[in-house]
Amino acid sequence: MKLNHIGIIVKDIEEYKRLLSTIGLTDATDAACDMIQKVKGIFVDIGFDNQAHIELLEPIDDTSPVINFIKKRGGGLHHICFEVEDIEKKSEEFVKKGFKMISPPVDCFAYDENFKRQCREPTRIAFFMLSDRLLIELLEKGK
Amino acid sequence: MKLNHIGIIVKDIEEYKRLLSTIGLTDATDAACDMIQKVKGIFVDIGFDNQAHIELLEPIDDTSPVINFIKKRGGGLHHICFEVEDIEKKSEEFVKKGFKMISPPVDCFAYDENFKRQCREPTRIAFFMLSDRLLIELLEKGK
Repeated sequence: MKLNHIGIIVKDIEEYKRLLSTIGLTDATDAACDMIQKVKGIFVDIGFDNQAHIELLEPIDDTSPVINFIKKRGGGLHHICFEVEDIEKKSEEFVKKGFKMISPPVDCFAYDENFKRQCREPTRIAFFMLSDRLLIELLEKGK
Repeated sequence: MKLNHIGIIVKDIEEYKRLLSTIGLTDATDAACDMIQKVKGIFVDIGFDNQAHIELLEPIDDTSPVINFIKKRGGGLHHICFEVEDIEKKSEEFVKKGFKMISPPVDCFAYDENFKRQCREPTRIAFFMLSDRLLIELLEKGK
């Protein structure tokens, strides 16, 4: 498996994007919205030719699964995402090994902020708790 | 800046190393001890030819600066480390920009578990709070 991104939950994505740019992490995508996770997200390159990123995620509304993380901790480091070739197979493996599935593989479509058009290639993602303290995302890129 | 590692605080480094190996992250170093941070650490490759790692850190004793993280949260994602060319210069920049310096640049020597010999090239490291929720480590490799 290969790192795809480090997920950070933030209250204000644009403010945090500016913060990262002040330390030299300037190569960032525009924001896109995921209607399942109810989040707005951007990716910021972390020095491997855009193969690995920090993902900044801001909840869109109070029904977002990440809202509790904001309420409890005020945001911060949230998950690590690894790219896999076959997410169904890898997820089955994870379940067999006893890791808790937080959400099964689903298609992830990224829309512009007006929810009018898709603005990134769709992916397929799933979430697992690796231990009681580490949330892992699996991601399969679109074919 | 380029990602060097993602720091995770754990209670039992060998147990966690085995956990990561069960999900395919098998390329790990032996443990080495840092007497300043009072931690035992290993690096696990995350798919960029050993240029980027997960760092697992276990406090050696109750005086370790990371012991509170274990007590408060039970461990988990702790910091992101970026490699820099000139840590003194970069640290000055960070201070001027108003980021809180948690610890100034110091030499970091890694010793074997009997504290008899150095077992990795020394580095120079510093810690900053980027926001109230994100701890950043800067690392300059030995010359």
